[in-house]
Amino acid sequence: MAELPKKSEAFFEWFSEVLERAQVTDKRYPVKGLNVWPFFGLKARSLMDRTIRDAVEKVGYEEVSFPTLIPETELQKEAEHIKGFESQVYWVTHGGTTPLDIRLCLRPTSETAMYPMFAIWVRSHKDLPLRTYQVCSVFRYETKTTRPLIRVREIHFFEGHTVHLDEEAATSQVRDDLRTFEEIAKALALPYLVDRRPDWDKFPGAHYSLALDTPFGEGRTLQVGTVHHYRDNFSRPYGIQYETQSGSQAYGHQTTYGLSERLLGAVIGVHGDDKGLVLPPAIAPVQVVVVPVLGKEGKEEVARAAQDLGEQLRKAGWRTRVDLSEDRPGAKYYAWESRGVPLRVELGQRELQAGNATLADRLGTKRSVPLADVLAEVPRALEAFRSALSERAFERFRAEIRPAKRLEELKEGAAVHLIGWCGKEACGHRVEEAVDGGLLGRIEQSSPPGILPSEVPPCIVCGEKALGWAGAARPL
Amino acid sequence: MAELPKKSEAFFEWFSEVLERAQVTDKRYPVKGLNVWPFFGLKARSLMDRTIRDAVEKVGYEEVSFPTLIPETELQKEAEHIKGFESQVYWVTHGGTTPLDIRLCLRPTSETAMYPMFAIWVRSHKDLPLRTYQVCSVFRYETKTTRPLIRVREIHFFEGHTVHLDEEAATSQVRDDLRTFEEIAKALALPYLVDRRPDWDKFPGAHYSLALDTPFGEGRTLQVGTVHHYRDNFSRPYGIQYETQSGSQAYGHQTTYGLSERLLGAVIGVHGDDKGLVLPPAIAPVQVVVVPVLGKEGKEEVARAAQDLGEQLRKAGWRTRVDLSEDRPGAKYYAWESRGVPLRVELGQRELQAGNATLADRLGTKRSVPLADVLAEVPRALEAFRSALSERAFERFRAEIRPAKRLEELKEGAAVHLIGWCGKEACGHRVEEAVDGGLLGRIEQSSPPGILPSEVPPCIVCGEKALGWAGAARPL
Repeated sequence: MAELPKKSEAFFEWFSEVLERAQVTDKRYPVKGLNVWPFFGLKARSLMDRTIRDAVEKVGYEEVSFPTLIPETELQKEAEHIKGFESQVYWVTHGGTTPLDIRLCLRPTSETAMYPMFAIWVRSHKDLPLRTYQVCSVFRYETKTTRPLIRVREIHFFEGHTVHLDEEAATSQVRDDLRTFEEIAKALALPYLVDRRPDWDKFPGAHYSLALDTPFGEGRTLQVGTVHHYRDNFSRPYGIQYETQSGSQAYGHQTTYGLSERLLGAVIGVHGDDKGLVLPPAIAPVQVVVVPVLGKEGKEEVARAAQDLGEQLRKAGWRTRVDLSEDRPGAKYYAWESRGVPLRVELGQRELQAGNATLADRLGTKRSVPLADVLAEVPRALEAFRSALSERAFERFRAEIRPAKRLEELKEGAAVHLIGWCGKEACGHRVEEAVDGGLLGRIEQSSPPGILPSEVPPCIVCGEKALGWAGAARPL
Repeated sequence: MAELPKKSEAFFEWFSEVLERAQVTDKRYPVKGLNVWPFFGLKARSLMDRTIRDAVEKVGYEEVSFPTLIPETELQKEAEHIKGFESQVYWVTHGGTTPLDIRLCLRPTSETAMYPMFAIWVRSHKDLPLRTYQVCSVFRYETKTTRPLIRVREIHFFEGHTVHLDEEAATSQVRDDLRTFEEIAKALALPYLVDRRPDWDKFPGAHYSLALDTPFGEGRTLQVGTVHHYRDNFSRPYGIQYETQSGSQAYGHQTTYGLSERLLGAVIGVHGDDKGLVLPPAIAPVQVVVVPVLGKEGKEEVARAAQDLGEQLRKAGWRTRVDLSEDRPGAKYYAWESRGVPLRVELGQRELQAGNATLADRLGTKRSVPLADVLAEVPRALEAFRSALSERAFERFRAEIRPAKRLEELKEGAAVHLIGWCGKEACGHRVEEAVDGGLLGRIEQSSPPGILPSEVPPCIVCGEKALGWAGAARPL
């Protein structure tokens, strides 16, 4: 097989090739932007879903499942929302040859599917908080160029929807959601910013929108998720009302939390290298591969030891493969490395006789350990690998983030720019023009922490006092 | 709350009420036939999916995920197939306000989405067998009255799709699929028939169709799944060709295997009773509930013992709840019974002092066991419960199945009729008229086994030699 394009030279060609070779998604389906998930990619995706589920269920979310189709009459109830989505939803107009009385759209997100039901479910203050989520496909009629995992027409989506007593309780939910994302990003070893999007860029219908932006190649950022505070903007038109303790009626305050398959795109884009995928243990379909080095002598003994070890690792709950193929060791190593396997256990005959094995991780760390200790070493080695992966990504992110004081500096593409911004729309649009992309908005949080210099300069456009650090980058 | 309708007197009212009260599905969504899955029902559904996944992965199926939308041009490639589906698919005609060049349908099943990709994936005999499955929503524009879990417009679906070297290899896959269903039905404690559908009733495009029919109230049967042999009926129009060992080109032979949310409907319909749900342990969202009987004395001690036991059970992997509410024991018992919890552990103060607890299962079996043995007894008690549930369902199924020798006997509604059938279409249609419903087709297998009398009578219509026992019932 030809070599991969170099990640540092041709990021998007590299990204596309890596997805194809590792069978993450297959873009050869007859409709552009609708992709197939082969076994390997789907497994990684499902493991990512599990990581998300585990994190959000700890803060009280319960999983539900709503219909894919939403009647036009429901979609239209919140005025801003329908304006934001009407040009990008798919419309079902016929059942068989019969025109439908009311058109149905494929959910672009599920506010308008869920909230009519919330209005039925929520009766009393005792029903609150209501915290639900679903993992599903959402659909957008994209007119821009599509790109696997990044901009597709059927999107694999996590969406959390909550209802609370009042604005403050909803704000506290927003904080909870950010904490769950911290946990998810830790498992995925991803750096990110929490950016409060400018008003003109917030979610249609939201009071405010916090975006979760990760780095994504050459100074670009990728919005992998959002947390929105809705106040009662949706509960009013949808009638989500409850009886308070004093017996009066009040509207609930709502939040939503969205994450998409882009999160997997970020993992691949941030961690991958010129050999292919590099996957954090939480979502690696294969976490450990045992590779016996099969020479002429002692072949059976080595193979048997590898199988025994594989069996032990599997029983301990690690996703393990044993590679007994006849290929030479270098070819085997490369094959598993290209699929991102975090940890390799090499078993050679001489080593085995000395009672040892070699642990090698996907970042190149290699050491000999007593065979009897491998089982106990694996969790430590995987966590050390995750931590090193995280450090490497943080280090690069730090290098990519640069304070700028003059608009001209924003022309420099390969950076995420930190600027002072006064908060005014006119200044914001000037920044957008200068950066040829997006004003990410005010930065509320960063991971790693401590990457924002303490002193905020004045607004990069008008020179007035800034609200705080804001980010500007070429978004995807 | 008002009492449930009696299952024996008003089956469908009972079924509908049970679903609503236990929050299995919620049918109050603004579009008929599109239902919401609340937390409890979705959990049971996900556990059912897990039961299916575990069974099929053992015979080599791998999970994949294909797009929801299928272009009209692909849907039309197999002539019988499109004829069978064109009147019942939902059509997407617009993206935003733009009419689409090629209409897209919401998959009614995924042959026509998957097979263009199979044509790319399958190159050589080494790529075969290809065994894939997905768990997804499929859509049918139902014009008949909808009914939760039984006839809906968005259907939760498992679909397996395979490609093999030749007809015989595909036939062997059909046998494997039936074996996996045996395992699934065992976990769900369900009786069923494997019926070879008459030719006029087979899947559009299939060589033959085997249906999995369970009992479903008052002598009706419910088709919960199907296994189809396609021969090369689809591989030819879709070009699924491979290079044989000798270097020539050949078309693959295919099978499919479908199961739907109806399977959950069958579980509820077959096992439920006048108190509500009765769930087999494999899919019960709560498998064990620990109910402390909180009297005036020793209240805290009993509550603590219940929590300790609950913790132990959870750690051992059982889905466990501890009910510390202040309701009286009878009310607690009823609440958990109505949600189908298989096993209850009662802890009273005097019992506790004697070092005992009471195990009660959802079928009423009750016994005292030493508290120290509860953890070890739970798996045994759950398996004994599953087995008793199965026996009860088998017993009822045996009583409901009746050999008939004259067409007039088929008028008797509350039975699944066993008849001789010569296989001719004209005779088949006469049977259909007489039974006011369906000729299930020739019975190839039954669970429990041994319910078919050994001597097959002649065709119930023409008196000629029969192919074997056939079933006739009011299907749903």
